[in-house]
Parts: sequence; structure tokens; C-alpha cells
Amino acid sequence: MPNTINQAAAALHRKYRGKLTIKSKVPLTNRRDLALAYTPGVGEISRQIARSRAKAYDYTFKANSVAVVSNGTAVLGLGNIGPEAALPVMEGKALLFKQFGDVDAIPLCINATTVEGVVEFVKQIAPTFGGINLEDIAAPECFTILERLQAELTIPVIHDDQQGTAVVVLAAMMNALRVVHKKKETVRVVINGAGAAGLSTAKLFLQYGFKQLILCDSQGPIYQGRKGLNESKLRIAALTNLACRIGLDHPACAAADLASALCGADIFVGVSKAGLLNASLIKLMRPDPIIFAMANPVPEVMPEVARRAGVRVMATGRSDFPNQINNVLVFPGIFRGALDHRVKNITDAMLLRCAKNLAALVSRPTAESIIPSVFDRRVMPAVARAIR
Amino acid sequence: MPNTINQAAAALHRKYRGKLTIKSKVPLTNRRDLALAYTPGVGEISRQIARSRAKAYDYTFKANSVAVVSNGTAVLGLGNIGPEAALPVMEGKALLFKQFGDVDAIPLCINATTVEGVVEFVKQIAPTFGGINLEDIAAPECFTILERLQAELTIPVIHDDQQGTAVVVLAAMMNALRVVHKKKETVRVVINGAGAAGLSTAKLFLQYGFKQLILCDSQGPIYQGRKGLNESKLRIAALTNLACRIGLDHPACAAADLASALCGADIFVGVSKAGLLNASLIKLMRPDPIIFAMANPVPEVMPEVARRAGVRVMATGRSDFPNQINNVLVFPGIFRGALDHRVKNITDAMLLRCAKNLAALVSRPTAESIIPSVFDRRVMPAVARAIR
Repeated sequence: MPNTINQAAAALHRKYRGKLTIKSKVPLTNRRDLALAYTPGVGEISRQIARSRAKAYDYTFKANSVAVVSNGTAVLGLGNIGPEAALPVMEGKALLFKQFGDVDAIPLCINATTVEGVVEFVKQIAPTFGGINLEDIAAPECFTILERLQAELTIPVIHDDQQGTAVVVLAAMMNALRVVHKKKETVRVVINGAGAAGLSTAKLFLQYGFKQLILCDSQGPIYQGRKGLNESKLRIAALTNLACRIGLDHPACAAADLASALCGADIFVGVSKAGLLNASLIKLMRPDPIIFAMANPVPEVMPEVARRAGVRVMATGRSDFPNQINNVLVFPGIFRGALDHRVKNITDAMLLRCAKNLAALVSRPTAESIIPSVFDRRVMPAVARAIR
Repeated sequence: MPNTINQAAAALHRKYRGKLTIKSKVPLTNRRDLALAYTPGVGEISRQIARSRAKAYDYTFKANSVAVVSNGTAVLGLGNIGPEAALPVMEGKALLFKQFGDVDAIPLCINATTVEGVVEFVKQIAPTFGGINLEDIAAPECFTILERLQAELTIPVIHDDQQGTAVVVLAAMMNALRVVHKKKETVRVVINGAGAAGLSTAKLFLQYGFKQLILCDSQGPIYQGRKGLNESKLRIAALTNLACRIGLDHPACAAADLASALCGADIFVGVSKAGLLNASLIKLMRPDPIIFAMANPVPEVMPEVARRAGVRVMATGRSDFPNQINNVLVFPGIFRGALDHRVKNITDAMLLRCAKNLAALVSRPTAESIIPSVFDRRVMPAVARAIR
């Protein structure tokens, strides 16, 4: 990033000492106000909730609140930098929840690096919140944490790096396919990066109906029989790389690397590292390739390089290029819908509806317009409508 | 409470669905705002904090935030009603933190009833907050929880039912003694109720210099040698009821009950139950007795009964009588001071200074004016000045 952005960000954060503040929705200026909002009046509210816990949704903060929980083990592209260093990110996220979804989100950055530690923490705070948004938790622990919490809690839990990313990528991809006149059933997809975002995007793509999908990690394509796969990768290996079989006996490539996966591919989705893709790799792909290069802040390939190599549709995570793929298009609406309808679990069917609703907001997709702007006011309601 | 208060409180809570909301301190209306408050600009803030965790105080929410943590095991006078039912109380408390101390407090009501469970939870969230306010946690667990957290964390931790109550009671008592022209060294004090508030008040009274103090629980006076005392009561038994020795061989009373403790006492401090005190008990006390009857919402004795029985100075927890003893006079200032000066531990010396500063705001105490109003704007700064 240019120094000017970094310096301006530091100045802003120093000036306000944090970005989030709380305020009262009720008046608090005289004794009667205090008697209603606090003691003795609040005693009656406590008694009613003690009789029926569900009344917490009628009378308290729980009605509209989400905990943004991170242990700081996979923050932005910075890795395991700890909970204090994750705090400015989660605080920013909480502001986006408010700005785009009118959800009251609270950043909770915690000392807990084990699956059990995070799961127990979230179960302890669940009574206070209407939903849980996990964030920037390292793979593969994040998969087990999410599965356990979804099974053990009765409030909705998402890991935004998983479901949020998967939904926004799928929405943009739906429109990208329309631009290049290709079909989900016949295209070959390569997803590079098998962390939270890559694995979750692969799963949602399969749900949506993509048939040929290869997931790559830093060792190259993942396939059944490859040694040293963790449980999440073992599971995805059973579902992907089937028709193409890169890494076993694919004739084109002796080495099972990213290049072998890209031979004859139509789509590259990068949730990996800056600069991993270049013109010669792109030229291994079929005509009219689609490239989503979402490494942040520097993408897998810069848009001008991709265009010169023949890429038809290009998207990144950045706001200074066309087609910005940003989770903020998704998470405020998911929780707005979940809170409004007291949805207990965010299902894959709901996520697919989210992606369809989001894609449908772009009525005539073009190469430079496959996804709505984050400032498009139709976005949040369209996503929220999918959650019920 | 009159039905009108309960009904109005229920209507207010239902209308707003909770009382606390969050808002942004920074602008968020265009792409540049987002780039500074969230990615990519926030990455620089995270990098700086990763290098030096203390910078979280310069750049984040931690600078001004307090977690209001309760497990719902001792809520108001309602007992163990659980975390959801505690939520409206903690939310109200968070509003008071904001209104009176400009502190951003977050209610966190948790599923955790053991000492270990609460301690581990608070240690997990400590990176996010500048301080911890424990609230409505049952005795005797609350004592161990507070001691452990004060020893194991480097942010200030108070249990408001302990320190907050002790400070405001002591402040009011300093002025009550001036009204009746009695001295702390010679008066005999009875504290009825040996939970969080009673034990902590007894300890601070001893620190301040009261010499004759009897603490009573539901079994009567606590004394060395009484059977079945828990650890906290054992410790206080070694420090109280020494000169008076009620319960052992006091000549006046065969039975060791509240009446025996009140014989010849100057002061009654009730943190117990409605209606435990009456005119005939008061008449066992020495002339010009001081009665603080703080059971809520119905005090140990009503002011008009006490007055007719000869009580000179009477205080309650209620806003509809003179001399309201309310923790809100204390906790906003304690955390305002602690956050402003990055105080790591709230010591007894600080608490004594708080009480003195608070008492000193009433320049000429009278029977009906021993403690400032909660709306007196001098209160918070006077308390905050004591914390450094």
C-alpha cells in the first residue's frame, strides 16, 4: 500500500483511539429514566426473561447483536499476530456491520488458540448475542470450530472467511460466466489456496453445480491419495479433481503443480499470495479465461498483466480496480436476515440464494461489472431476503 | 415496585429491543473512509500492534472499553436467574458507564458458574478490553474470582458489588458520622449481610479505621470458632467482632442473633433483605443511630419507621428517599481514572481516596444530605482523581 494510506490510517486511529463507541437508545437524563432503564424497573425485565429465556430477544441487546470473534491466528495476510493486533480489524468489521446492516456487532479478540478454547469461549458468550461471526481464525482449526459451534449452539454462527467469501465469489462468478457465455456444468475451475476461503468456496461451487474443480494448495493440486492431507483436504479431495485427475495420471504434466492444474482450465480463483500468476501460466488456460485474483493487498496477478494475456473477466479484492470482491457485500445482510427472522442455522441453501440474489442485482453483466458496488443500497436487503 | 414502573419499564424495553447500540467514531461514507478504517489501511495498525501490544491503547477500542461480565448467579435481589435474565441489567449498567463516565462498556453475560469457568473466560477476553467490571456473581465464588483475576491480569478488575458498594457506603458513612458527631474509632458497627457487598464493606471499613465491627449473616453474628464458615467468612472472623465478641460470651444475649449484635451498636448497614429491621430492634441501639438500609427494592426498614424509632441518619438504595446510596456514584469514575492513567490494579488506598473525595463533595452534611446526587457533575471527576 502507498505510504499515504498507511500514514492516514495511523493518524485516524490515533486521533480517535479506536473507531467504535457505544450509545444509549433510551433517554437517561432524570431519575425516572434511570428507574426504567436500570433499577428498579429492569428487575421486571429480568424476572420475565428468567421465566422465558426467549424474551431476551424482545427486551435486550441480544435482539440485534453479533459477536465478531477472532483469536488473531490468521489476520488479513499477516498471519498469527495475536488478539491485540487483530482488534483494529475486528473493530473495523463491527463498523461495517453497523453501516451496512444496522447490526450491533462487538469485537471480541481472545486469548485462545486451540479448537477447544475457542469453542468453549463462544459457548460461554452465546447468551448475550443473537449471532456469532468468526473471523481470521487459522485453518484447519477454523473448520472444526465452525462445525462444532453450528452443531452445539442455537444461534447462527458463520466464519466469514469461509461462507462470506464463498458467497461473494460465487455471485461474481455467476455473472462472469454470463459475460463469457460459458456454463457451470462444463467449465474447469482451479481454486488456488486451500485455507478457509478456498475450501469453503470449493464446497459452495460444487453445491451450485460446478462439475470440474481442482483445489490447489502450496504443494500443488489436491487429489485422493496425496500424502499428508489434513482432514478438511481429505474430504475435499473426495469431491474435486475427479474428471481432470491432475496429480495422478494426467498426460499433460508430469509435475503436479499449479501449471498442470491450469492446463485447459477456464477459471482461476486465487485466495493465495501476491504474484503467483503470470502471463505464461494464463496462456495455458482455455480461451476467454476468468481470473479472480483476491490476494490482498497485492493480487495474484495485476489486472493489466492479465488483460494483455487474454483474460476476459478479471476481479480482485481491491477497491481501486473494477469488480471488487468484498465480503462486506454479504455478512451484513446475512446477519440482518438471521436476526430479523431468528434463523438458527445458516444453511448452504440460504448461501446459494444469497449468491443468486446478489448476482441478480447486476442486470446486464459486462467484463467490468460483474458485482454490485459496496455502496449499492440494494445489496443488504437482497442478501437478507435469502436468509429465512 | 408499583406496577406503573414495571409496566413502563417493560414497554420501554420492548419498544427499543434493548437499550445499547454501537456507532462509529470515524466517517464511513466513501471508499477512502473504508480504506482507512478497514482494509487495506487497518493492516498497518495491526502490524504496529503486533510489534508492540501496548499500542492497542493508542489505536483501538481497548483505550476506552470495559467488559461488564456477569454469569447471572446473583442478579439484583433475584438470585441465580441465569445469563440471559442478567442481560438487561448489564446493558443498563453499560449505559450508566457511558452516561456518567464516557466509558464504552459492553455487557457480556456468560454461561459459566464455576470459579475456573469465569476466570478462564475473563482471561480470554482481556486483550480486547481496558478493564473488567464483574457484576452480580454469587458469593463466595466472587471473592476467589476477583482475587485470581487481579493477580493474573494486567488490566484493572473490580467486582462492583464488592468495591463499588464499599466505596459509596463508606463515603456516605463518613458524612453520617459528621452529622451525629461520632468517631470511627469508637462507634460500634453492625453490617448485616455477608455476601459480596457486606464482606467488602466490612474490609474497607476496617481499612478506614473502624475498630468495632460485627458482620452478620443469616445465622447471626460471625465470630471466630463458629461452625461451618466458608473461607471468606473465616478470614473476616479473624478481623471483626473482636471487642464485642457477640456469639461467644457476651453477657447481654444468650442467642447470637441480629438483636444481640445490635445491642449497643451505633450503626446498622443492611445489605440483606426487606423488612429485617424494626423499631424494637432499633431501640436496642445507642442514641442517634445511623441506619443504611440498602436492600432493594424494599429496604430492611422503611425511613418513616426508622425516624419514629429515633434514627438520626437514614439512607437507602432508592431514589425516592433522601440519601440514595448507589454504586453509579463510583464505578464510572473508577474506570475513567483507571483508563486515563492506565492503572493496572485498583488498590485499597485508591478506594479509600475515592470515598474521601466523594464524601468531600458534600461540604455541610445534614441528616438528609450525606451523599451527592447521581446527577451531580462533580462526582465522576472527584472519583476519577483518586485512581492513579
